[in-house]
Amino acid sequence: MRFVDVIEKKADGLVLSDEEIQEMIQGYTEGSIPDYQMSSMLMAILQQGMTAQEATTLAMAMMHSGDVVDLSDLPGVKLDKHSTGGVGDTTTLVVAPLVAACGGTVAKMSGRGLGHTGGTLDKLESVPGTCIEQPMDVFKDIVRKTGVAVIGQTGNLVPADKKIYALRDVTGTVRSIPLIASSIMSKKLASGADAIVLDVKTGSGAFMRTKEDAFALAKLMVDIGKLAGRRVSAVVTDMNQPLGLSVGNALEVREAVQLLSGEVSEDDPLFEVNMILGSQMLQMGNLAKDDAEARKMLKEKIADGSGLLKLKEMFKLLGGDDSYIDINKIDELVKVEQVIDVCSKEDGFVTSMEAEKIGTAAQMLGAGRATKEDVVDPAVGLIMQVRCGDQVKKGDVLAKLYVNDTKNLEESTKLIYDAVHITKELGEVEPMFYGIVTPE
Amino acid sequence: MRFVDVIEKKADGLVLSDEEIQEMIQGYTEGSIPDYQMSSMLMAILQQGMTAQEATTLAMAMMHSGDVVDLSDLPGVKLDKHSTGGVGDTTTLVVAPLVAACGGTVAKMSGRGLGHTGGTLDKLESVPGTCIEQPMDVFKDIVRKTGVAVIGQTGNLVPADKKIYALRDVTGTVRSIPLIASSIMSKKLASGADAIVLDVKTGSGAFMRTKEDAFALAKLMVDIGKLAGRRVSAVVTDMNQPLGLSVGNALEVREAVQLLSGEVSEDDPLFEVNMILGSQMLQMGNLAKDDAEARKMLKEKIADGSGLLKLKEMFKLLGGDDSYIDINKIDELVKVEQVIDVCSKEDGFVTSMEAEKIGTAAQMLGAGRATKEDVVDPAVGLIMQVRCGDQVKKGDVLAKLYVNDTKNLEESTKLIYDAVHITKELGEVEPMFYGIVTPE
Repeated sequence: MRFVDVIEKKADGLVLSDEEIQEMIQGYTEGSIPDYQMSSMLMAILQQGMTAQEATTLAMAMMHSGDVVDLSDLPGVKLDKHSTGGVGDTTTLVVAPLVAACGGTVAKMSGRGLGHTGGTLDKLESVPGTCIEQPMDVFKDIVRKTGVAVIGQTGNLVPADKKIYALRDVTGTVRSIPLIASSIMSKKLASGADAIVLDVKTGSGAFMRTKEDAFALAKLMVDIGKLAGRRVSAVVTDMNQPLGLSVGNALEVREAVQLLSGEVSEDDPLFEVNMILGSQMLQMGNLAKDDAEARKMLKEKIADGSGLLKLKEMFKLLGGDDSYIDINKIDELVKVEQVIDVCSKEDGFVTSMEAEKIGTAAQMLGAGRATKEDVVDPAVGLIMQVRCGDQVKKGDVLAKLYVNDTKNLEESTKLIYDAVHITKELGEVEPMFYGIVTPE
Repeated sequence: MRFVDVIEKKADGLVLSDEEIQEMIQGYTEGSIPDYQMSSMLMAILQQGMTAQEATTLAMAMMHSGDVVDLSDLPGVKLDKHSTGGVGDTTTLVVAPLVAACGGTVAKMSGRGLGHTGGTLDKLESVPGTCIEQPMDVFKDIVRKTGVAVIGQTGNLVPADKKIYALRDVTGTVRSIPLIASSIMSKKLASGADAIVLDVKTGSGAFMRTKEDAFALAKLMVDIGKLAGRRVSAVVTDMNQPLGLSVGNALEVREAVQLLSGEVSEDDPLFEVNMILGSQMLQMGNLAKDDAEARKMLKEKIADGSGLLKLKEMFKLLGGDDSYIDINKIDELVKVEQVIDVCSKEDGFVTSMEAEKIGTAAQMLGAGRATKEDVVDPAVGLIMQVRCGDQVKKGDVLAKLYVNDTKNLEESTKLIYDAVHITKELGEVEPMFYGIVTPE
């Protein structure tokens, strides 16, 4: 097989064989296929697409390029969740301990935030002492003891994906749906869970800007899961406004603690999305027979405090000071030099928001990274005081900025004003939840 | 400008600005844009196409990446012709001296053959002593003295095209019509002619397999010429069978000498295509007012021998032994150890041929190169004894092979049988000429 012929085949819109895809990944990982051929192939894939079988073969070939985690010695159905990345998305810190409190086994490897989206590892590290780098046996021990562990990636997982992602980043091929799907699924498959709930975000703050693209990505990942022999379902949720009100690492941990303490309304989008994700996990884990039963269980674990206890246990086992995981002490993590109100300049209705700008505003205050080398300040960020659909009067607070370094304060403030669209009449407000994609 | 953004723009099907294209060519030639980004861009162009203005900017940016030939000190309208490459295509050696004999100024740089297609330089070198590497002043002197010179490329012409072509060759992006058009036109523009006739071949032996693609390429090159301020017309001709009967270097020089000596019938495809190309050149050179006058002039220069005399003069000025350019002596150039008849195994009609296989058969006998390093044998090759549409009986000679080295004889013979399709009933025979594309 000459790889140039395989490129031409894809450029012509034909379907690649399993062998061609496997040799491509092996050759590129080993270095026998050079970057300039791979980037041409990636652009051909971006333009011509891939079938579900091709994307599955690609995901599995990437999975097998490195270590594959074996969780089979843990009890029950091993559950994982993954979000395609959003702003104010604190679901992992809520749903993972809640599902564990319901008897589930949640073993999850998370990532760091980059750009306007947050990362669970940064949130975990905002609790002093927490170490997210854990060897595999410790990771499994934590899961055995508490039913839930969230750590950083361990071992040499999917090196092919790392190499391909770096190339996509500089060759205009990031936004190919089959490449996104196989990249995410290669990591999920390598992480060893039996059942995976995917949260595909759509809207201004998400990778998938349109609902159509989000559903296409969701469906393809569910198809890959099925063809690879895993249980996968995907929910498509809105990222036109931040999911939670808080954007920033400790601020989001605090919002998770508030939710697990029963202090967040059931009408709140963050609450609802956690119910949807948790329900899928419980059903796939054979712990609830339907959505109604699952929601009932999840709400019980909020009411009796057992969800919060699971979070507290997990932090302790990760070396963190779990005394902060308490509604009366969590505020200490978000102590900053100044809290600054950004107030509305006009009367009207918040018809829409640009979550990306809100995420960037928090990042510029020090909550996130512009480059991988940047250091984050765990306490800073912002708390939105309005939701889409809210009526505001001139002078009402739109957002509270939690600030230590005022260097980018002006620009962050400007981003908030740009992000929050206030109109005289209330326009159409996007829902927070669009649908669930399950295997056919 | 980040080049990755320019790649994304093209990947989205948008039109690139002149500045973006110019910076791309400058950056890639200088090395600041790496191969892996350029190959992704080339695949995006293959998939999304380019407007005539984009292709013109690309051709001109490539032209300006190296030396540009200035022919302005030569008299009259400087004429050039170019063929996209075919089998048995001896037109340059016929039409260039004929047009010169009509008073035209023909200054042409040619290429070598590769694969199944022949190259004019190899044909020129089959006459002993001919040196196709000439400095610019000698090239111009020959044109001044005889009105015609055909040499190899001189100076550092279009280095960007060389670098891009090498990358296209290994990244599945060779067959993009805008990339082919801008590659050809960059070289033609850099070569300095005022008016250019392009012969775009279509069919099994050509780069453009379909008439639609051939016309699209022809139209785009004519558009580029117009936007770049040159007179360009393009003819689309057939390459489903070899154009001339001879395939091989000295064999094709001999067929050119035969034609210029009046020994090729006016019904012959090679004769007719030379008339079409010559007519375009004379009209663009303001030497004939219409096709009828141009054809009359060209035929006169065959009848009075002045076309042949121009060819002879040119060979002499290139250092070649011009005594061979004589109908009574030219046979000495094609002396080989064996001439082997390939005979029909059945009765029927030659409905179609595969010119690529016939070209490959000649190449394997030593007439052409499989790789750039191969040495050609000027005398060997083959002469077809049948044309599409001919009736044949079992035992009739299909082709005569001119052989020195019998190493690949069996395989060459098999290729001839594979190439010549004989059917019981006469099927539809493709014409040799499809149309002329002129500036709108």
